[in-house]
Amino acid sequence: MSGEPPDMTRMACPSPLPHHERIVVGHGGGGVLTRELIEKVFLSAFGNPILAGLGDSAVLPAEWFSPARGAGERLAFSTDSFVVQPLVFPGGSIGDLAVNGTVNDLAMSGARPIALSAAFILEEGLDVGVLSRIVADMARAARTAGVGIVTGDTKVVERGRGDGLSITTAGLGLVPADSRLGSRPPEAGDAILVSGTVGDHGMAVMSVREGLAFEAPIQTDSAPLHGLVAALLAAFPDVALLRDPTRGGLAMTLGELVAGKGIGIEFDEAAVPVDPVVASACEILGLDPFQVANEGKLVAVVPAAGAEAALAALRAHPLGGKAARIGRIVADHPGLVVARTPYGGTRIVPMPLGEQLPRIC
Amino acid sequence: MSGEPPDMTRMACPSPLPHHERIVVGHGGGGVLTRELIEKVFLSAFGNPILAGLGDSAVLPAEWFSPARGAGERLAFSTDSFVVQPLVFPGGSIGDLAVNGTVNDLAMSGARPIALSAAFILEEGLDVGVLSRIVADMARAARTAGVGIVTGDTKVVERGRGDGLSITTAGLGLVPADSRLGSRPPEAGDAILVSGTVGDHGMAVMSVREGLAFEAPIQTDSAPLHGLVAALLAAFPDVALLRDPTRGGLAMTLGELVAGKGIGIEFDEAAVPVDPVVASACEILGLDPFQVANEGKLVAVVPAAGAEAALAALRAHPLGGKAARIGRIVADHPGLVVARTPYGGTRIVPMPLGEQLPRIC
Repeated sequence: MSGEPPDMTRMACPSPLPHHERIVVGHGGGGVLTRELIEKVFLSAFGNPILAGLGDSAVLPAEWFSPARGAGERLAFSTDSFVVQPLVFPGGSIGDLAVNGTVNDLAMSGARPIALSAAFILEEGLDVGVLSRIVADMARAARTAGVGIVTGDTKVVERGRGDGLSITTAGLGLVPADSRLGSRPPEAGDAILVSGTVGDHGMAVMSVREGLAFEAPIQTDSAPLHGLVAALLAAFPDVALLRDPTRGGLAMTLGELVAGKGIGIEFDEAAVPVDPVVASACEILGLDPFQVANEGKLVAVVPAAGAEAALAALRAHPLGGKAARIGRIVADHPGLVVARTPYGGTRIVPMPLGEQLPRIC
Repeated sequence: MSGEPPDMTRMACPSPLPHHERIVVGHGGGGVLTRELIEKVFLSAFGNPILAGLGDSAVLPAEWFSPARGAGERLAFSTDSFVVQPLVFPGGSIGDLAVNGTVNDLAMSGARPIALSAAFILEEGLDVGVLSRIVADMARAARTAGVGIVTGDTKVVERGRGDGLSITTAGLGLVPADSRLGSRPPEAGDAILVSGTVGDHGMAVMSVREGLAFEAPIQTDSAPLHGLVAALLAAFPDVALLRDPTRGGLAMTLGELVAGKGIGIEFDEAAVPVDPVVASACEILGLDPFQVANEGKLVAVVPAAGAEAALAALRAHPLGGKAARIGRIVADHPGLVVARTPYGGTRIVPMPLGEQLPRIC
């Protein structure tokens, strides 16, 4: 029970999938059926000593969160529900989204993730094989991110009262005591970077929903970003702000960054990396790639003096190869995001009202 | 940002309820509508400086989890989804259940709760007035429990793809370094205590669903138990095990306690406190009160030598007035729970298969 969180991720192989079984309401009753489901489907995939204790809560060893190497670390805590449809799409599933989404929320605080919880709401009739495949995706994603899934819950709703499966994860992470991320807010002159192409995740899901066929299917970019963040902060610690542009895409993230504050944003549309296939798909469906969700990208606001060092650090990491400097914070037009178009004009980029794409994560 | 968690619970009054509004899919899109919903409904109820930061994750001050007064505290982490129907029932709602349920999971580890997350899955068409009422219940329950709701998420599913509202909470708590709870497993001779009447919560929900009318409606027992646990452990620290008998009731909790272990349980049916109205309702519906969910009760396994001190401590607390010593751990019949009936016989009490009552929490 001592040592570092990564100990927890030597997960056992999932047992053979119990195909042809379907979820019944009794699987959510907290009785023997619930126990069997947990043991067969969840423990075999996530298995680690803390989860296997099946206590009402996971108790983490002190070493996990107050390491001898220094006091003053802060705890980051985050949660996200996932309701994406379909449950499985090119490059991923609701399972790895549920892990990476919460890991990334922690990473945006500069935290190293240490533990996740996972709560499942299953609809009666869900195929247990599908569930097991998704749970295996979660286990793989947790292993990749180096976190253990240490506590969980399962509920079942009657047929027609849910949508197959929704997953809510919560996560804990540690922010190093000496983290300088966010030590001052974004200010005029700061550079805005994105870590790669935008719109991939949303279009991967949409292309399945709309039955679009491309030579190579658009894949989700779902990935855990804490390693990329660590590399960025090691190269340039004074990052003013990090955000992951998920629902509402880049446009929402930039809009929130300036909303109600005395700063604006100016960015160059042509500088924002967009995969050509994603761009085509967006055109076919009449969507703006800047409003489409990402699940493995970050937006960083850094002082201009550090922009090139930060960009180099992002590009040197496997998840940031296509990182780009796209614009800057300005004192003019506070509260507004203004894009320079490829045709030399400018346009105001609004925050999306709802989202173009419901049920994308 | 310094000081103790209770600082966080001086919550602002909710703003006037935006009645007559209904949830639309766009409220889940992560855009302006989501932001408005969060600000109007959630922030006004849960408002505290950490949540109001609206970061991707809440970053808790170091003082919250590594207080100067002693190293070696451990962190407890738990999660629970709530899908109860109806959303509101005598004495409570899904809102206070969602807070108390997770607080109690932490309390069963001997932890003092310090922070909660709350993730909402809303069905299109949900009345915002209903949502606001439930959110106000959560805020009140969090205040009572002395925890802040510091981070959250909101998703929306289309009409017919959800069931009004489900809430998933996760919680963090601190287990004192010197906690002796669970320092040895339950063993033959230990006494089994319950902190009060069983079956109240499940029958409060069922009586609404079944339209049963009694002179006084059966109220849920939903309550935060960490204060009761603290009082118990202060009086008698060497408690072997604490559990809250929620889904599957007392029968499930006792069954899990001995399942696969070399011990059994013997208890006296007549010693288990059951409210007479709950007993009548169970009789009418053909239910066993020992299998009905509780949301404000605990089961404690304590060495026989400490049983009377522990019982006295429970009884001295407002939430344990009807605490009772109901039985003991035995070496005979390992894995089995055996009840002495009021008629002098004995019967084996099985773990419920599913649950008699779906959607009870």
